[in-house]
Amino acid sequence: MPEQIETLILLETNIDDMPGEWLGPLLEQLMNAGALDAWSTPIQMKKNRPAVQLSALCEAEKAPELRALLFVHTSTLGVRQQEVQRYSLPRRIERVETRFGPIRVKLAEYAPARWKAAPEFEDCLAAARAHGAPLAEVYRAALARIDFVMNSG
Amino acid sequence: MPEQIETLILLETNIDDMPGEWLGPLLEQLMNAGALDAWSTPIQMKKNRPAVQLSALCEAEKAPELRALLFVHTSTLGVRQQEVQRYSLPRRIERVETRFGPIRVKLAEYAPARWKAAPEFEDCLAAARAHGAPLAEVYRAALARIDFVMNSG
Amino acid sequence: MPEQIETLILLETNIDDMPGEWLGPLLEQLMNAGALDAWSTPIQMKKNRPAVQLSALCEAEKAPELRALLFVHTSTLGVRQQEVQRYSLPRRIERVETRFGPIRVKLAEYAPARWKAAPEFEDCLAAARAHGAPLAEVYRAALARIDFVMNSG
Amino acid sequence: MPEQIETLILLETNIDDMPGEWLGPLLEQLMNAGALDAWSTPIQMKKNRPAVQLSALCEAEKAPELRALLFVHTSTLGVRQQEVQRYSLPRRIERVETRFGPIRVKLAEYAPARWKAAPEFEDCLAAARAHGAPLAEVYRAALARIDFVMNSG
Amino acid sequence: MPEQIETLILLETNIDDMPGEWLGPLLEQLMNAGALDAWSTPIQMKKNRPAVQLSALCEAEKAPELRALLFVHTSTLGVRQQEVQRYSLPRRIERVETRFGPIRVKLAEYAPARWKAAPEFEDCLAAARAHGAPLAEVYRAALARIDFVMNSG
Amino acid sequence: MPEQIETLILLETNIDDMPGEWLGPLLEQLMNAGALDAWSTPIQMKKNRPAVQLSALCEAEKAPELRALLFVHTSTLGVRQQEVQRYSLPRRIERVETRFGPIRVKLAEYAPARWKAAPEFEDCLAAARAHGAPLAEVYRAALARIDFVMNSG
Repeated sequence: MPEQIETLILLETNIDDMPGEWLGPLLEQLMNAGALDAWSTPIQMKKNRPAVQLSALCEAEKAPELRALLFVHTSTLGVRQQEVQRYSLPRRIERVETRFGPIRVKLAEYAPARWKAAPEFEDCLAAARAHGAPLAEVYRAALARIDFVMNSG
Repeated sequence: MPEQIETLILLETNIDDMPGEWLGPLLEQLMNAGALDAWSTPIQMKKNRPAVQLSALCEAEKAPELRALLFVHTSTLGVRQQEVQRYSLPRRIERVETRFGPIRVKLAEYAPARWKAAPEFEDCLAAARAHGAPLAEVYRAALARIDFVMNSG
Repeated sequence: MPEQIETLILLETNIDDMPGEWLGPLLEQLMNAGALDAWSTPIQMKKNRPAVQLSALCEAEKAPELRALLFVHTSTLGVRQQEVQRYSLPRRIERVETRFGPIRVKLAEYAPARWKAAPEFEDCLAAARAHGAPLAEVYRAALARIDFVMNSG
Repeated sequence: MPEQIETLILLETNIDDMPGEWLGPLLEQLMNAGALDAWSTPIQMKKNRPAVQLSALCEAEKAPELRALLFVHTSTLGVRQQEVQRYSLPRRIERVETRFGPIRVKLAEYAPARWKAAPEFEDCLAAARAHGAPLAEVYRAALARIDFVMNSG
Repeated sequence: MPEQIETLILLETNIDDMPGEWLGPLLEQLMNAGALDAWSTPIQMKKNRPAVQLSALCEAEKAPELRALLFVHTSTLGVRQQEVQRYSLPRRIERVETRFGPIRVKLAEYAPARWKAAPEFEDCLAAARAHGAPLAEVYRAALARIDFVMNSG
Repeated sequence: MPEQIETLILLETNIDDMPGEWLGPLLEQLMNAGALDAWSTPIQMKKNRPAVQLSALCEAEKAPELRALLFVHTSTLGVRQQEVQRYSLPRRIERVETRFGPIRVKLAEYAPARWKAAPEFEDCLAAARAHGAPLAEVYRAALARIDFVMNSG
């Protein structure tokens, strides 16, 4: 399997002293500031406090800016930082024509001549809205087309 | 939308005083005893106790047997019971031929001439194992085939 | 306590057979279609499947449209429906001037002459972005102002 | 199975606009005010907000007081209320002598001559602390003793 | 405390673009392929997507095979990897005779002459099924017996 | 941003074979024994077992004692350990006078002359109880006062 390896930074902090609604815009802010991924996990802290753990994955050079975002936009006074290796599959984009218009499909070769195919979410959402169709139908059409392309030929 | 309506029973109980591993076999036991669905939800109880809420949905005539299962196989001393209406879509099964063999696909008409298609999980799992293929590829092949059937002709 | 009472509908459905990313736009769609609230809960279903329970609260007359949304935009074939009573506090909006501009504050009298105060999230977010300030500072300024208004005079 | 049935009230409310740490004391307050059970569930609300659903189970006559507690001590402006049936097993308390002192054990007959046995948590915790022993050892001693009592003789 | 130390690998990946039901068989596949432990955690990702984080713990030499499993059987294109130290207690197996037949009990000495005892889950489950008894009763019998063995003589 | 950096230890262990109620006292025990933070996360383990991951953050010299606590007071036979960097903001305590008495407020300078303010939870809780007031009102009063102090003069 032709994996690529990078060393990245994982930032984490626990939040039990600010309202959940303030966290709403934060994941997008972290992504806009260069995070490769950002998410929250429900946790249970001392004194019976429901809380969340915020996590962000980024390149080392982005870590100071993301920590600053966490310090400015959350109540946290401490952010944990770790190095992680990320193994990833090389990918390429194919464009398929469907009855809902063109949709990009992300392809990754996970074994010789075996491909994972993921229609691009934003393309599918836009096409679904333009046609008043459910996402599932647009995905089905895109997967049908890419399945044909990959297995005929 | 041609919905069907039934009156069903929802059983729920909170568990904080038995090990999680004992719950492992329980969802299958509930399904085998006639539950239409069974699931658990992580909750946080008094005195900082992580716990789970167990839920089972069933027809009214099955409720006594499912309550008995909960009383016998969990630590609970109390089970909550409510009536709920369930609205459901009529469905039918179509069988499609794929390069991984025949796969059943569940179809539901959610609007005139618009169909939801769900390949049967157990068929796909069996085919995936027989061919050493990932589930995703089997689903893609089944969806491609059903997409063709539904939108051609 | 001067509670108001309404009879509302609670819709719920369990989803284990569609990708989480498709659920992303759904809560907003449900709100736009008239849901009074909409949320998801992580659950664990049979056969070791992580899943979510989707919930929407609405007036009875909106229930058919929201069920249709769930049937069209998710994989579900069955939606549970229950009646619930909702007790709520009467509320009014006050507008306060802060160093970040005017902010609306929602007030609810939970006991004679005792008020809960909730600065409007969207006002605070807009002011925070316009001033490059954290949400917490805008809230603090709004709460400070409303605290003065309510307790002086 | 000799079940008892009561009609109870289930109160629920979703909270996304107050800090989790304020919820810490609330479950105990609800229990002290007469709730039969109280718990929180992590949920995900609109606009990507992590949140919790608070739940309390009580007798009908206690519902107004518990709703008042929720209105006073949380940010909520609306509380959902439903009737539920609770099926429960009759229980009795047995007292067993262990090497950690006397421990009460709750017994429930779930089938003729078949008993569930639950050592009382607070007794075990007190004995564990008095002896510097882990809870597990105190439970094991109490279960061993009750197992002997129930199956010999 | 006589701890043993190993250096192990922790693999993690976030999944928001495949159905939860496909994850059902995956934890067992990871265990069968040599993972020392495997689990999932509910998380909340960007754009309001409910998702799960998959985790697997393994020896360094098993990591490439487990990463390959994740790449083949999930939608992920990236797997995070970290080294962790695992401290563990030495353990031994004792076999006890109960009224439900022989049950193995795992023992770990957590302090001089103080033992943790864990009846083997699979033994208890098999005995419970063979006797139509609840798991709790089989555990109670096994714990009673091991408690006697450890504290007499 | 004037961050401070420390190297700390993160301890984690997965628990599926002991009752959640035994975990209730454990987070406080870990904090009392020197943990800087301690929390649990709901997870789903193999064989459909709901479980929790326990986490504790501490200085390196405290790690052996905290591991011992985990081994004595939980069912675990293995504890994972990792080094993490913790970045934190310097903070100071200010004391403000409110209509509910004096409240300490934690201040952290997240940017030149920009301060985060967090009223001390225990002070607010004590004042709230002494005055029969909701926590929210005490916080509002403390934040109003600190907002005035920081932005006037």
